[in-house]
Amino acid sequence: MNERLKKLSSWMKENGIDVCFLTSPDNVFYLSGYFTDPHERLLGLAVFQDEEPFLVLPAMEKNDALQSGWAHEIIGFTDTENPWEMVHTAAAKRLQKNASKVAIEKEHLNVERYEELMKLFPDAKQFVSAEEKMRSLRLVKDENELKALREAAALADYAIEVGASEISEGKSELEVLAAIEFELKKKGVSQMSFSTMVLAGQNAASPHGNPGQTKIKKGDFVLFDLGVVVDRYCSDITRTLAYGDVSDKQKEIYDTVLKAQLAAIEAGKPGTPCSAVDLAARSVITEAGYGEYFPHRLGHGLGINIHEYPSVTETNPLKLEEGMVFTIEPGIYVPGVAGVRIEDDVHVTASGLEILTKYPKELQIIK
Amino acid sequence: MNERLKKLSSWMKENGIDVCFLTSPDNVFYLSGYFTDPHERLLGLAVFQDEEPFLVLPAMEKNDALQSGWAHEIIGFTDTENPWEMVHTAAAKRLQKNASKVAIEKEHLNVERYEELMKLFPDAKQFVSAEEKMRSLRLVKDENELKALREAAALADYAIEVGASEISEGKSELEVLAAIEFELKKKGVSQMSFSTMVLAGQNAASPHGNPGQTKIKKGDFVLFDLGVVVDRYCSDITRTLAYGDVSDKQKEIYDTVLKAQLAAIEAGKPGTPCSAVDLAARSVITEAGYGEYFPHRLGHGLGINIHEYPSVTETNPLKLEEGMVFTIEPGIYVPGVAGVRIEDDVHVTASGLEILTKYPKELQIIK
Repeated sequence: MNERLKKLSSWMKENGIDVCFLTSPDNVFYLSGYFTDPHERLLGLAVFQDEEPFLVLPAMEKNDALQSGWAHEIIGFTDTENPWEMVHTAAAKRLQKNASKVAIEKEHLNVERYEELMKLFPDAKQFVSAEEKMRSLRLVKDENELKALREAAALADYAIEVGASEISEGKSELEVLAAIEFELKKKGVSQMSFSTMVLAGQNAASPHGNPGQTKIKKGDFVLFDLGVVVDRYCSDITRTLAYGDVSDKQKEIYDTVLKAQLAAIEAGKPGTPCSAVDLAARSVITEAGYGEYFPHRLGHGLGINIHEYPSVTETNPLKLEEGMVFTIEPGIYVPGVAGVRIEDDVHVTASGLEILTKYPKELQIIK
Repeated sequence: MNERLKKLSSWMKENGIDVCFLTSPDNVFYLSGYFTDPHERLLGLAVFQDEEPFLVLPAMEKNDALQSGWAHEIIGFTDTENPWEMVHTAAAKRLQKNASKVAIEKEHLNVERYEELMKLFPDAKQFVSAEEKMRSLRLVKDENELKALREAAALADYAIEVGASEISEGKSELEVLAAIEFELKKKGVSQMSFSTMVLAGQNAASPHGNPGQTKIKKGDFVLFDLGVVVDRYCSDITRTLAYGDVSDKQKEIYDTVLKAQLAAIEAGKPGTPCSAVDLAARSVITEAGYGEYFPHRLGHGLGINIHEYPSVTETNPLKLEEGMVFTIEPGIYVPGVAGVRIEDDVHVTASGLEILTKYPKELQIIK
């Protein structure tokens, strides 16, 4: 077993867990090295205290899983086979006695599969969550992970550079978006972290607007929120650029967001609670009178998943630790006036934060 | 309440269900008209037998939900509020007595939320699945849905046209893919149904390969599998084109897949079981000696979701009915030789099938 699996097995022994059955593509990837999105089909990784783990996945993916380097058993099922019977047989072979405690991903496993697992392990008195453990395993990134995260961040910077160069009178949000993704694909990027956002003018004043046929015009803010996946690790950047001269009110909003973002970066170092990082930014915005227009948390952890631990909210007491990676992304959205968000990906070092995304943050006015 | 909600309420009355709590973005959209992907945050639609339904979603989306036309209550929660308490209060206001039977989406609801709902409705003796009902509501498409599906299919045809024109010596899969998505975005497409596949040569011999830096060379099959979302409805097309002369073996594989695909189309009409449609194609492939190289079902339903009912497998007895929309996509993947798949979206009419995707299927050899 690899080191990550060994850590999980140790945790299982400490907690008397007989079987851990993981189903989320990201946790299965983290532990097995094989990534797949099986859509509605089952994907599972069964881990035991001492016995060999196994993967269960659609038969058509078996070859890919083998080639990914997974050295243990792989159970492939076709669309007409019942994968649960196969899981049952494989687990029974490994277990000395009926499982009495099973760990699952309660935030991922659906009720239907939960009911199947309860039938499979009828003597299980407890189904506990494996998620806190998986989060703590994944919370601190190793050097390989940081390498991927840095590359993903550099490509996100490049994407903003392309976006900035594409801004011009009358061009639609989707045209700019298409140009960005086209240039990224030419660089070998095969996946974005999430649907790329290019929002112009009033559209940017919605914290989760959707890009469309809105055309860029003088006096607009143009908000880019995007990320790139490199070796399965995500980046996430937001920059807000001005096209032509913007009003004093718009500038005030921009300056407030930037000041808040820099305050949060200043606050981040090992030992600081997430809440203090959020509040460092939030208090700047509140003091400037925009508190009600910043309706979301400061940021979120980043890794295999675009949203992972830690959650950087004003109430999370979790202390920062070397190796954590998360976003810092305050925003102010005033309907009818302007929407501004500035987001960086940061990595906690021994003394503070390493900023992974490096695109400039001073207000850039494109003429 | 709209007609769809009324149908669900009638079903609840017939089955003595007090509350239906739906959580999947597609079912919430189908019933409410509001679509959002809330990521890890809660999205819920609560429906009652007679009382007013309500939506629960992140506070930052409340305005968008209002603007989508939803006429009933919307509960918005911030990242620091507990949405379950809010759901509890809103449900208690509506219910005359404690709920004893609750419907949920067992394939979507996760165990953590299931446990929250069990706490919310402590007297509920039964949690039943709402999914079969939702599938039967969604299985037959209305004229508005068909309009979106036809437009989405026409754009998928256009995407293949672009892809075909981009094939040339030494171009990478990702370069072709980028060109396709660039042209689509210029036409106003903001979302693909799933990650676009452009697979060249040996890569196409994996039924779920991933596009990368592989360069197209003479004698390759190039497989395109892609879809476009229009008004939230998905298309899904696969075409396999030849670049330069291909071997007799490759042609034999292509002809077999095409013959199988046409046989399935010929078999499809109201009253025919899904299994018979699958087997019409499968038997052509098996008789040609390639049975073991066709490892997946013939197709899947299509609508708001890229994979929905019906599942067109060799064992599904469900009979086709006017208004159903699904894919027909046989494939043969012989490692080291070739991978070919041909896929259309079809709509069941009174007399047979309307083919929504219209890009030609005869073997096209690009010189």
